[in-house]
Amino acid sequence: MLYGAIEAGGTKFVCAIGNENLEIIEQVSFPTTTPIETMCLVKEFFDKYLDKLKSIGVGSFGPIDVNTTSETYGFITTTPKEKWRNYNFLDTLKSYFNVPIALTTDVNAAAYGEYVKGYEKKISNIVYFTIGTGIGGGGILNGELIEGFSHPEMGHMKVVPHPKDSYKGNCPFHGNCLEGMAAGPAIEKRNGVKGQDLSEEDSFWEIEAYYIAQCMYNTTLMLSPDVIVLGGGVMQQDHLVKKVRNQFKHMLKEYVQIPKINHYIVTPKLGQRSGIIGGLALAEKALYNARESIH
Amino acid sequence: MLYGAIEAGGTKFVCAIGNENLEIIEQVSFPTTTPIETMCLVKEFFDKYLDKLKSIGVGSFGPIDVNTTSETYGFITTTPKEKWRNYNFLDTLKSYFNVPIALTTDVNAAAYGEYVKGYEKKISNIVYFTIGTGIGGGGILNGELIEGFSHPEMGHMKVVPHPKDSYKGNCPFHGNCLEGMAAGPAIEKRNGVKGQDLSEEDSFWEIEAYYIAQCMYNTTLMLSPDVIVLGGGVMQQDHLVKKVRNQFKHMLKEYVQIPKINHYIVTPKLGQRSGIIGGLALAEKALYNARESIH
Repeated sequence: MLYGAIEAGGTKFVCAIGNENLEIIEQVSFPTTTPIETMCLVKEFFDKYLDKLKSIGVGSFGPIDVNTTSETYGFITTTPKEKWRNYNFLDTLKSYFNVPIALTTDVNAAAYGEYVKGYEKKISNIVYFTIGTGIGGGGILNGELIEGFSHPEMGHMKVVPHPKDSYKGNCPFHGNCLEGMAAGPAIEKRNGVKGQDLSEEDSFWEIEAYYIAQCMYNTTLMLSPDVIVLGGGVMQQDHLVKKVRNQFKHMLKEYVQIPKINHYIVTPKLGQRSGIIGGLALAEKALYNARESIH
Repeated sequence: MLYGAIEAGGTKFVCAIGNENLEIIEQVSFPTTTPIETMCLVKEFFDKYLDKLKSIGVGSFGPIDVNTTSETYGFITTTPKEKWRNYNFLDTLKSYFNVPIALTTDVNAAAYGEYVKGYEKKISNIVYFTIGTGIGGGGILNGELIEGFSHPEMGHMKVVPHPKDSYKGNCPFHGNCLEGMAAGPAIEKRNGVKGQDLSEEDSFWEIEAYYIAQCMYNTTLMLSPDVIVLGGGVMQQDHLVKKVRNQFKHMLKEYVQIPKINHYIVTPKLGQRSGIIGGLALAEKALYNARESIH
């Protein structure tokens, strides 16, 4: 019995096959080009496993329509990637593979991977942020994905500008929202170099940490999750998570009793595999749900 | 068969008895004084119904410990009301009444009331804010209360100061968080009169709406609930909800497709009874859970 997983990113697709322990058996990745070309490679990869493939879990770039009662359920909707706009992702997959398929956002999938495999379901409330070329957030509450009328767009929350920061933000929708102030491109715009080329001692990191800490603060007060996981390229600066923790504690003023800080604001247990393992975990869940609905 | 409900507020307690349709049969209220005095009146009220009382639901002022695995589960913890600090609320009630008892925050109870009775569970994601002498938020996601390591404290989220507002905020913890800028006392501090005595045309209301709209914006992007309910004394200014909706739309820039605005940001369907009816609904749930755990 095998599970399939797709991590559909704006720049690359990752496909994987995993076993019942959610361990990856084979994994491939290729650039995201046109839907026809890209989906053809997806089909080719999973076709090798068709006889044992039981279900597929997908974490996708977005925005996607996750509302099961909607006419465009399973579509990638208003993405700036023109060729993928209003693309019926889910039905295309269904036309290839006659197995249960679960679809959610890339960050929800990563959160689910951390929940199921990273934390082995020992806690049931996790929020996951990716801080990279954009900022996205997803989560699990009471063991279920956070999805209401749509999936969350936590990366666009409002933040208070840092007193020493004159940058106006580059979010095309909201200007100086969290993503507009703290994602990779905003770091590069201010400093002239990418974050990875800024020294650990650069004073800019305290400004960056200030914005991420506000996100941790709001997330804590809105959701009081058991853990907040910080992934994505920007967080690969090892020193950054400590700076975020310090500024977060300073903001919170011990107003609520959080879990121990080093176990509360953390980097992913699964490293860069949260999303793809989350896909396998979603596949497992899709199979379980499909069986339940038969009985 | 009767349900009991307690709305335990910082200034007054409301107790009610309701039937299986969650309709209130009798209701009393009295000022919150000392725990001994207040709880004595609680006991007296419900004692009349002991033979038919099946369960009790409580929405309490806080902070309270809602973590069932904690040693201080069911305690009112670090409240500024000294006599109630570290008060074992749940065990006191259990010593009086040998029935299942559910305890959560006042705002969670109100959210639950709107969910069960206001919306008859036709939607499963609701966030409820009370904007009064303080600001509190609670909610339901996938039909379950939002509770992680603790209950949310949404009223203390960060807000961006309005360009025309020089007020520094009065939250003893965070200064200019949402509560520090937009709760009743902050309105009075700026204007010299209470909100209810400010004319509808006063330009201050646009400043007030700006802060509440930020809360709506962050809540939308963090949780994408089906509806956000705005209760509490400040929201009794009928004109305010429209101003909030307008500013919210302006901030969101149609970044996500929300439900129709007049059905999305709303005042409570149950008026001022959301909390006490929520208590009855929590009692119903507590009874159901207790029966399930026997089978």
